[in-house]
Amino acid sequence: GFKGRNISHITVEQSVKDLCMIYMDANEEDKLKFFTELAEKYGVDHDYVTTAAMNLASCKDYDYKLTLEEKLRGALVPKSQWLFTQIGRLENGVKFLVDLRTDLLDAIGKSEGNNASLKALNNGIRDLLGNWFSIGFLNLERVTWQSSCEMLQKISEYEAVHPMRNWTDLKKRVGPNRRCFVFTHNSMPAEPVVVLHTFLTDHIASSVQKIVTSHRMRMMSLDSDLPMSNTAEDPNFISTAIFYSITSTQRGLTGIELGNYLIKRVVRELQSEFPKMTQYSSLSPIPGFTKWLTSSLKSETRISQNLLTETEIDALKPIFETYSSDKNFYQVFLDLLKVNTWFSDPRLVKELEKPLMRLCAQYLFVVKRRGYALDPVAHFHLKNGAVMWRLNWLGDESPRGLGQSCGMMVNYRYFLDNCENNSQNYMENQVIQASDQMQHLVKLT
Amino acid sequence: GFKGRNISHITVEQSVKDLCMIYMDANEEDKLKFFTELAEKYGVDHDYVTTAAMNLASCKDYDYKLTLEEKLRGALVPKSQWLFTQIGRLENGVKFLVDLRTDLLDAIGKSEGNNASLKALNNGIRDLLGNWFSIGFLNLERVTWQSSCEMLQKISEYEAVHPMRNWTDLKKRVGPNRRCFVFTHNSMPAEPVVVLHTFLTDHIASSVQKIVTSHRMRMMSLDSDLPMSNTAEDPNFISTAIFYSITSTQRGLTGIELGNYLIKRVVRELQSEFPKMTQYSSLSPIPGFTKWLTSSLKSETRISQNLLTETEIDALKPIFETYSSDKNFYQVFLDLLKVNTWFSDPRLVKELEKPLMRLCAQYLFVVKRRGYALDPVAHFHLKNGAVMWRLNWLGDESPRGLGQSCGMMVNYRYFLDNCENNSQNYMENQVIQASDQMQHLVKLT
Amino acid sequence: GFKGRNISHITVEQSVKDLCMIYMDANEEDKLKFFTELAEKYGVDHDYVTTAAMNLASCKDYDYKLTLEEKLRGALVPKSQWLFTQIGRLENGVKFLVDLRTDLLDAIGKSEGNNASLKALNNGIRDLLGNWFSIGFLNLERVTWQSSCEMLQKISEYEAVHPMRNWTDLKKRVGPNRRCFVFTHNSMPAEPVVVLHTFLTDHIASSVQKIVTSHRMRMMSLDSDLPMSNTAEDPNFISTAIFYSITSTQRGLTGIELGNYLIKRVVRELQSEFPKMTQYSSLSPIPGFTKWLTSSLKSETRISQNLLTETEIDALKPIFETYSSDKNFYQVFLDLLKVNTWFSDPRLVKELEKPLMRLCAQYLFVVKRRGYALDPVAHFHLKNGAVMWRLNWLGDESPRGLGQSCGMMVNYRYFLDNCENNSQNYMENQVIQASDQMQHLVKLT
Amino acid sequence: GFKGRNISHITVEQSVKDLCMIYMDANEEDKLKFFTELAEKYGVDHDYVTTAAMNLASCKDYDYKLTLEEKLRGALVPKSQWLFTQIGRLENGVKFLVDLRTDLLDAIGKSEGNNASLKALNNGIRDLLGNWFSIGFLNLERVTWQSSCEMLQKISEYEAVHPMRNWTDLKKRVGPNRRCFVFTHNSMPAEPVVVLHTFLTDHIASSVQKIVTSHRMRMMSLDSDLPMSNTAEDPNFISTAIFYSITSTQRGLTGIELGNYLIKRVVRELQSEFPKMTQYSSLSPIPGFTKWLTSSLKSETRISQNLLTETEIDALKPIFETYSSDKNFYQVFLDLLKVNTWFSDPRLVKELEKPLMRLCAQYLFVVKRRGYALDPVAHFHLKNGAVMWRLNWLGDESPRGLGQSCGMMVNYRYFLDNCENNSQNYMENQVIQASDQMQHLVKLT
Repeated sequence: GFKGRNISHITVEQSVKDLCMIYMDANEEDKLKFFTELAEKYGVDHDYVTTAAMNLASCKDYDYKLTLEEKLRGALVPKSQWLFTQIGRLENGVKFLVDLRTDLLDAIGKSEGNNASLKALNNGIRDLLGNWFSIGFLNLERVTWQSSCEMLQKISEYEAVHPMRNWTDLKKRVGPNRRCFVFTHNSMPAEPVVVLHTFLTDHIASSVQKIVTSHRMRMMSLDSDLPMSNTAEDPNFISTAIFYSITSTQRGLTGIELGNYLIKRVVRELQSEFPKMTQYSSLSPIPGFTKWLTSSLKSETRISQNLLTETEIDALKPIFETYSSDKNFYQVFLDLLKVNTWFSDPRLVKELEKPLMRLCAQYLFVVKRRGYALDPVAHFHLKNGAVMWRLNWLGDESPRGLGQSCGMMVNYRYFLDNCENNSQNYMENQVIQASDQMQHLVKLT
Repeated sequence: GFKGRNISHITVEQSVKDLCMIYMDANEEDKLKFFTELAEKYGVDHDYVTTAAMNLASCKDYDYKLTLEEKLRGALVPKSQWLFTQIGRLENGVKFLVDLRTDLLDAIGKSEGNNASLKALNNGIRDLLGNWFSIGFLNLERVTWQSSCEMLQKISEYEAVHPMRNWTDLKKRVGPNRRCFVFTHNSMPAEPVVVLHTFLTDHIASSVQKIVTSHRMRMMSLDSDLPMSNTAEDPNFISTAIFYSITSTQRGLTGIELGNYLIKRVVRELQSEFPKMTQYSSLSPIPGFTKWLTSSLKSETRISQNLLTETEIDALKPIFETYSSDKNFYQVFLDLLKVNTWFSDPRLVKELEKPLMRLCAQYLFVVKRRGYALDPVAHFHLKNGAVMWRLNWLGDESPRGLGQSCGMMVNYRYFLDNCENNSQNYMENQVIQASDQMQHLVKLT
Repeated sequence: GFKGRNISHITVEQSVKDLCMIYMDANEEDKLKFFTELAEKYGVDHDYVTTAAMNLASCKDYDYKLTLEEKLRGALVPKSQWLFTQIGRLENGVKFLVDLRTDLLDAIGKSEGNNASLKALNNGIRDLLGNWFSIGFLNLERVTWQSSCEMLQKISEYEAVHPMRNWTDLKKRVGPNRRCFVFTHNSMPAEPVVVLHTFLTDHIASSVQKIVTSHRMRMMSLDSDLPMSNTAEDPNFISTAIFYSITSTQRGLTGIELGNYLIKRVVRELQSEFPKMTQYSSLSPIPGFTKWLTSSLKSETRISQNLLTETEIDALKPIFETYSSDKNFYQVFLDLLKVNTWFSDPRLVKELEKPLMRLCAQYLFVVKRRGYALDPVAHFHLKNGAVMWRLNWLGDESPRGLGQSCGMMVNYRYFLDNCENNSQNYMENQVIQASDQMQHLVKLT
Repeated sequence: GFKGRNISHITVEQSVKDLCMIYMDANEEDKLKFFTELAEKYGVDHDYVTTAAMNLASCKDYDYKLTLEEKLRGALVPKSQWLFTQIGRLENGVKFLVDLRTDLLDAIGKSEGNNASLKALNNGIRDLLGNWFSIGFLNLERVTWQSSCEMLQKISEYEAVHPMRNWTDLKKRVGPNRRCFVFTHNSMPAEPVVVLHTFLTDHIASSVQKIVTSHRMRMMSLDSDLPMSNTAEDPNFISTAIFYSITSTQRGLTGIELGNYLIKRVVRELQSEFPKMTQYSSLSPIPGFTKWLTSSLKSETRISQNLLTETEIDALKPIFETYSSDKNFYQVFLDLLKVNTWFSDPRLVKELEKPLMRLCAQYLFVVKRRGYALDPVAHFHLKNGAVMWRLNWLGDESPRGLGQSCGMMVNYRYFLDNCENNSQNYMENQVIQASDQMQHLVKLT
């Protein structure tokens, strides 16, 4: 064990650096070995802990109890934790640790069964990173075409929600009527830790394609004597901020909440830049709907659940039969969903709107996991105090949007004065604040 | 207790903010009450911990043991720790916590006897701050006359070792042939957390007054076409860096080591700026010498210790008698030390040099506390791997220098190739690396 | 002459650099010689010009005339102009030239009689500098306590209108409820070329002492979670910007107008920072009043001019006699003005208010030079389109204010919508836009 | 005429701004009209000038002559010049003027015959811009992948010498072992006015394809504790800087020399970054060679000139005949050159090397225009003091390189100590400093 009070910090630093260099060259298998050894040999000294626990359990003196608690607390810190702390002191060490945790999460994911000690190791790193990525240490930066190519390249690469096809796309995402804000951390300066894309407009947008392809340009308000370009923003037009993409880029920071803080800070920035800004809303994907729907349609209980009304089934049946005459209704439905065939058939687009909207509203509003919304994006915004505001038919017609949620998108709206109440009500009482439209959709049959 | 998993983070943030605002207006007494309540009511749930410890002590299953350890680890985190984490997330929250710990250290200092729970509270904050002030999160900045007035004003105010009298003094300390480097932390950007003043010269300087009043100016090497000023540095002359003042400015960061990292980083900066730089040394105060000497002179065993040789006593006695004929020798000696009277008497300056140099060398080299050098500045540099290089008679003739160490200063020299070995040898074997001069002085009688 | 088309630019650069280095070491006498030689030997080749002028005068062909004009234009550029252009290409060369022109203006000031060629030389440099200090090349910078010490030291040293006594004064002038803006030029970056001090308040201020000593501090609007200081600005209170000091720092830029551009830019900055800002006004000294008054009182025609009304004389006479019984009325008046004796006598402060206010209003509004206001500060603001708004009794009680203008100050107010008209009307028709108060004062007897 | 001493500057500014806005929307024809009107109606008042010239020609008094000269100088400044000065004061006005001059140069290029007044107009703008783009006002910036996307996009678009195909190309050009430096001007900050691409290596490179496709990567010298990437520069390897592309991006700055200053500044930067840097050389295109060769081959005197030796003709003839049996030798040669057919035939690549190298050396070294090298790139580097160092066969195998100069490139080498002499010798005596290889090639037959 190289942890010790009386070792020169120079010796320590060199050893730790060497260890990191070896790790960087290791393959997946080596890394797993490394993790396992760390977890088992450099974990807690279980015998020592047991003894310390015994001593504490039998202690009667208050002051002495405090001392024993302190001792036990120290004993419960695995030796590996000390190594991670040392790594964090190296230049680029924090980023190294974030990437190491990514590897560790992979290893845990791939491990079968017996991974309790790997999980304990992971918890230790998470707690450390949680301390280091405390919100106070993150810097809010606006990304524009004047930002560094390094940053913009990363913004482009990390964008998973609505991918960019080329640099022209990218230029538009950071151009007029958009705001792209990121959190960066001092110890990994060119790395956008969380990214939030916002669209500036005058209404609660319902379709992301319109945002991504918008070309509205107005004459600039002449801030300078001679304009360098003849396109710009009209602050009198802008009343609404649409958060249309939020991405946490570092898998190694899983479990450390930053996105909600970014939204909160961006709202503050926008308020001060646009005094006439009054509406804040997301335009969000519904990543789990199709999966849930598919699974429900396959389930034994699909009929008793009344997923579709009889009227709906009657209307769809003749159309389904034009696709396959021998498969049963639900089988055809599943086939049509699988590769988005339904979307190319105007009859289906028309007839499916009502049932899919209802089912999706139910998925968002009714389906729960441990009392909270099953859909992770829904859970994220509801936790932040947003209202489930509007479900939008054909809000995202991209293959991705059709695949995830049959093309639907949802607005979670932020009413600044009520966020606290909503958030509290959701977290403490599991109550989802939803608009009339949403509530109506749910009940609709 | 307002800690809880299912509380809206907005609610939490507002409550914590309110608490901080109340604290900022509180007086000393209120603060003590606040600390006591935190320590006692928001500490660890001792009963719960005892039960958890008992369960762990009796558990036999490996995997389940891990779970119980995790549980106990959580139980041992005082509730107050969670509050401090929340405070750290507020803007300016980290600085608030550093200042709060300063208050807490004051409170502990003033408390009599029963302060075990305050100390536990303090340990918790120290660990948290230790994570946050990990070296990777500190920025190295050079301070010059082009730095902000805000920063320079602080540099001036924090300088305790060799105080500046006015802005002209300050301008010199950040001017040619000097380097002033600081560590800043992102969460308190205009605050120099540690400050290191370095003098650039061609030899191991022996007197700080010469540094503080140096006026050597040379023609600048013409980097620009026309010089803006006719004074500058001569890179061919500069071979030596003298660290003549290092200050940790935040008492609230007591126990979190940063100074050694600053020295290491500055060495690296200087190496890259001055390829001909070969010598690195401190010129350091000896804060504890006079105190130790006084106490030794008062001690019963002063004679058996042979503090002074008979020859020395014989030489000094007649001079001492010109000051007081009725007091005994040691009493007069103590009087002469008290207000630095000896320094105004050339006879004493001459006769005291040999004994004081020897005694000071002994103080530095021989006197120990738990095996390590008693003098805190010595301990700091030896831990960093420096060599105790040279004791300088009349190195600091300021009242402060005379008062602390009878005007002596010491060079701790950094031989870069040996620092690691020295540091290790000191920390592990308690061996002090000292020059021949020092070793000779110690034995001299 | 080393000007020539086919010389290597490297040779040229080295020669010019050498010349500058020699100049920098020269004394006043050497410099005068240098100027004289430049003006006479490196001026225009007069014979060549005469011939070229003759050729042009007799040319009949249009196209050929253009060629001859181009030739003559070239011939009229003195050789020295080419040297100055070369100097401007050196690093720090522009600042060198600005300082050289300061020397030249000194030399012209001291020369008696025959200085036509020095003046021609001066015109050449002025034109060159005028090109280089075109407004487009100046950077607007706000100076705060976070600005560099180098900049703040200069701000302090250059402040002539209301001098600062110490760094605390300085900190206040760049602190809350003030804005200090400067123009800098890229070729001399740490040099504030023009400085404008603005005070932010809710009314047209009438006294500069109140500005300089104001301590109004309000609770900050909580932009950050925890305040670092408890004093700040209240944007709801601020409706008025008072320009209370404007300084052009480089005498070598005499004749190149920059101050008006600075005011215009600052107005734009303030408008965007404070949406509720509606009033803009200077609070200006009246540098020429006492001088004019003294000279008028001494003049033969002082009685026929009716400087004072009989009522006023009757009221003042008994008080004057308490100072001197044998001197005549005007002589005593002049004595009382000379060292501001009147200001210590409440009787005089009371009785002089009416006549001095009237006389000063007349000085500002009626006394002219070539059709424009004689007072240079008045001329500056009127040219910018300001309105002569209000004369303030005891607006500046400092010795300087009493000496220059018997303690009076004047507000020139900027009504943004009318500036253009006012400026045009003043410049083209010599009409001074003045408030009712000013017009009333002028006529008052 | 709107020029006048007594016009409000606010009125002026608005008028000028309006004029610019109109110009920006104008088409080519409108612009020509605008230029013509400016040139003719807002030029010099020729009658007034004639009278002033007459007065001057007949004046005898020295001092009065100075006055008349000043007057004439003023009269010779066209009124349009004043307008341009005003434009330069607007924000973005300088860039506007640079672009306007581009339009004007186009108009002059397209005009037939009578354009004397347009040329006079152009001279006026050139002089003004020459003052504004004085080297002292240009900022040296290094462009890297951390520079703004805006800047990098422009670097990519302006690169004409060796065009980039995509962003990966671009990333390499600003990556390890390269330096891309630009001059920017404060009044058009995101615009690289001149761009210099440098390759860092250990020898005088002879082929640009090797530079553009180089992948040499070495382990980084560990400046930081943990490397973020495993590729970097080896300062011990780098001894040579190859300037492989220099571009002036603004046609509106034609005639204002900036490139030489950029090279000089970059040399200084590299010297300070790489103490072991000893060799500086360009790797340059020869833009005029093929054109000159083609024209020589077509000329009547092609035989008497002995372009090719008889041995060479004998060797080439049989190969040429495989391409065409009925055309004459020179005709075939011209055909082979036209679409670089020769380059696909290894026999021709072999046989043409000697004659083409000789002819190209002659073109560079012997062919002159007004005494100076005809090739513009040669003239540029020779003027800067470089030595014509080495002609490289197949230095640029791109279609562009083959088309311009039969694939040859040339190194102009900068020996820092001799640049001044060389430059002077070239400019004053038209002597080209060339290496033995070049001199040998020229004489080779």
